[in-house]
Amino acid sequence: MSRLPRGFLLSAAGAAIKRPGRNDMALIFSEANAAAAGTFTTNRIKAAPVRLDMRRIRSGRGRAVVVNSGNANACTGKRGMLDAEETASLAAGHLGIPDKLVYVCSTGVIGVPLPMRRMRPALKTLAKGLGSASLEDAARAIMTTDTVPKFLSTKIRVGLREGIISAICKGAGMIDPSMATMLSFIMTDVAVEGKAFALALREAVDGSFNSITIDGDRSTNDTVLLLANGMLGNSPLREGSADFRRFKAALSGVTGKLAEMIARDGEGATRLVEVEVMGARTEAEARRGAKAVANSLLVKTALYGGDPNWGRVMAVLGASGISIKEEKTDVFFGRVKVAGRGAATGKEQEARKELKGREVRIRAALNIGRARARVLTCDLTEEYVRINAEYTT
Amino acid sequence: MSRLPRGFLLSAAGAAIKRPGRNDMALIFSEANAAAAGTFTTNRIKAAPVRLDMRRIRSGRGRAVVVNSGNANACTGKRGMLDAEETASLAAGHLGIPDKLVYVCSTGVIGVPLPMRRMRPALKTLAKGLGSASLEDAARAIMTTDTVPKFLSTKIRVGLREGIISAICKGAGMIDPSMATMLSFIMTDVAVEGKAFALALREAVDGSFNSITIDGDRSTNDTVLLLANGMLGNSPLREGSADFRRFKAALSGVTGKLAEMIARDGEGATRLVEVEVMGARTEAEARRGAKAVANSLLVKTALYGGDPNWGRVMAVLGASGISIKEEKTDVFFGRVKVAGRGAATGKEQEARKELKGREVRIRAALNIGRARARVLTCDLTEEYVRINAEYTT
Repeated sequence: MSRLPRGFLLSAAGAAIKRPGRNDMALIFSEANAAAAGTFTTNRIKAAPVRLDMRRIRSGRGRAVVVNSGNANACTGKRGMLDAEETASLAAGHLGIPDKLVYVCSTGVIGVPLPMRRMRPALKTLAKGLGSASLEDAARAIMTTDTVPKFLSTKIRVGLREGIISAICKGAGMIDPSMATMLSFIMTDVAVEGKAFALALREAVDGSFNSITIDGDRSTNDTVLLLANGMLGNSPLREGSADFRRFKAALSGVTGKLAEMIARDGEGATRLVEVEVMGARTEAEARRGAKAVANSLLVKTALYGGDPNWGRVMAVLGASGISIKEEKTDVFFGRVKVAGRGAATGKEQEARKELKGREVRIRAALNIGRARARVLTCDLTEEYVRINAEYTT
Repeated sequence: MSRLPRGFLLSAAGAAIKRPGRNDMALIFSEANAAAAGTFTTNRIKAAPVRLDMRRIRSGRGRAVVVNSGNANACTGKRGMLDAEETASLAAGHLGIPDKLVYVCSTGVIGVPLPMRRMRPALKTLAKGLGSASLEDAARAIMTTDTVPKFLSTKIRVGLREGIISAICKGAGMIDPSMATMLSFIMTDVAVEGKAFALALREAVDGSFNSITIDGDRSTNDTVLLLANGMLGNSPLREGSADFRRFKAALSGVTGKLAEMIARDGEGATRLVEVEVMGARTEAEARRGAKAVANSLLVKTALYGGDPNWGRVMAVLGASGISIKEEKTDVFFGRVKVAGRGAATGKEQEARKELKGREVRIRAALNIGRARARVLTCDLTEEYVRINAEYTT
């Protein structure tokens, strides 16, 4: 389904930010003022556009988002902030809206100033071209090392009406579960009450973007923005109502699918990996253990090799600092129990078969509590190394 | 220099533990009772031999160490402990010494029981062959994915006498700075007082093995054992004496060089990398920041590619949770300042030259305090992935 939420228009343009020959800027515009919520990187080094957006999101309103790939505008000093502000200001001018309703997001190389000379004319092109780009076009324009554009639309019933949630996102490296960890822009025409709105986004992000990891590195630019322009005409959804619960579920569904797309498109990845730790003392421990396994180079390379190396899983869990009893821990690859009560079950051959597919599931049952957590990741390949050895400043 | 400390004898033998055709066991024996100190993995999942040695080290005494490569005897349940105990007991029988003076160390695959049937006869061979192996022979027998044997001897003046410290170690993967992180066996004929002895080892390990990282994974088997048999005949060194200070310095020199050998031999590594964080608020923060940089896949792959990607260094420091101010931070590759006060200095080409060698130095000056820390690591290459995708259970 590719229909956009009512009142949202997209465009894409090329500014040869890193290299010529492709669209590397996108503009998202809402015809009506929209409620805006966002989550941002927890990295202490934040890109200029992130700092700008964090100030602006306090108003809870927005109309437009300018996104560029190829350059992160991070670690660019005072000039970086001036460039982000000018980008917003020029876009606002072309669109005839106040500066403060424009958000700016950048992704790409760190430490290099934006090529504003080439971006200024592109901003005009973007404003003029509104409505000419599809969701996929916009998703393509914000890709960096992504191999596939990531976008998604879903319908949602609100009373007797049918609203739409559409989203694009990008991310394939520098992905860590500590925060939103990439760029994602979610648009909806459903009207939602202010407080409930921000809460819905936070919950959706926690269960999705905050539960994936590619390489344990956290970006300076991670941003998720949600714009809801209410053009469906429904009376704003309230916390606790059935419609709001349905909206939250739909939003979580969207972010969950996007997060899975990111993990699946992990740089150089050949397999999508789900790591689940269950029977942990607390949810925090379950999550910490699952993340440790998902971030372990030794586990990720073993998965790449199709090797059911459960010893590495045990070793990582043991080193992660969570409560664990060797003699109580079971490890599964897919449906096959490879370790029972801390020792081999002799089912290595069966387990090896479970690792042949594009999707792999590792489960560790600690059997000391009732909490569980799930993290998505991917395997680690020579291609990851090549991509990142060559992705030059 | 290849002379061993007085009274120490070595042997090596093959037991086809993982595959036939090489020596995979070593025996270290002291003719006299020796003082023994050790540091062990902090992983909550500990191999059976580690648990055995941790009990035995409480006596502060030892005579012999049996080491095998090819199998970690970790996650092997009750049988694992019985096998470790039997190994010690058989060796003790052949050597005519009490069981409790024998230490056992294993390294290799996790989760597979030891092939005791082949190891039993090898233990006899080891005892019979004492004195036939050089330091290098023993170092070779304990290698796993190491590409070079790691051994070292040094002389130390004690009053008018000349003592010797000799050591072997192994380690190339599953190396993390949180603990001793590999196997290392250090022998000396110098007599040292009990309390001072353990202290000297701890200090030496902190500044060396605990300051290297290959892949952030911590083993279930990490062990450093120090045996001092006093056969030099000196009066035991006391804390605070000049001779003790010299001994400590020599010991730290030995462990420092071994740690460097390990980092240099990191699986698939092409470069030795020194990461230094200075001007930090506290030493703990400096160390945490340095480790984060040293463990970052994005930094390690950039170094492999010879790319002075200081933005990744900044991003990792920002994500590490330490106090940092972007606008105060300088980053150096070798002697070249690539980022000053958080922004590019335009010296990328000069920095690129600094990354051509086999040894690379990254320094981050946070300029907010006076603490510093240094961590050794290596780059991350396709070869690391290959080795670990194929190192099968």
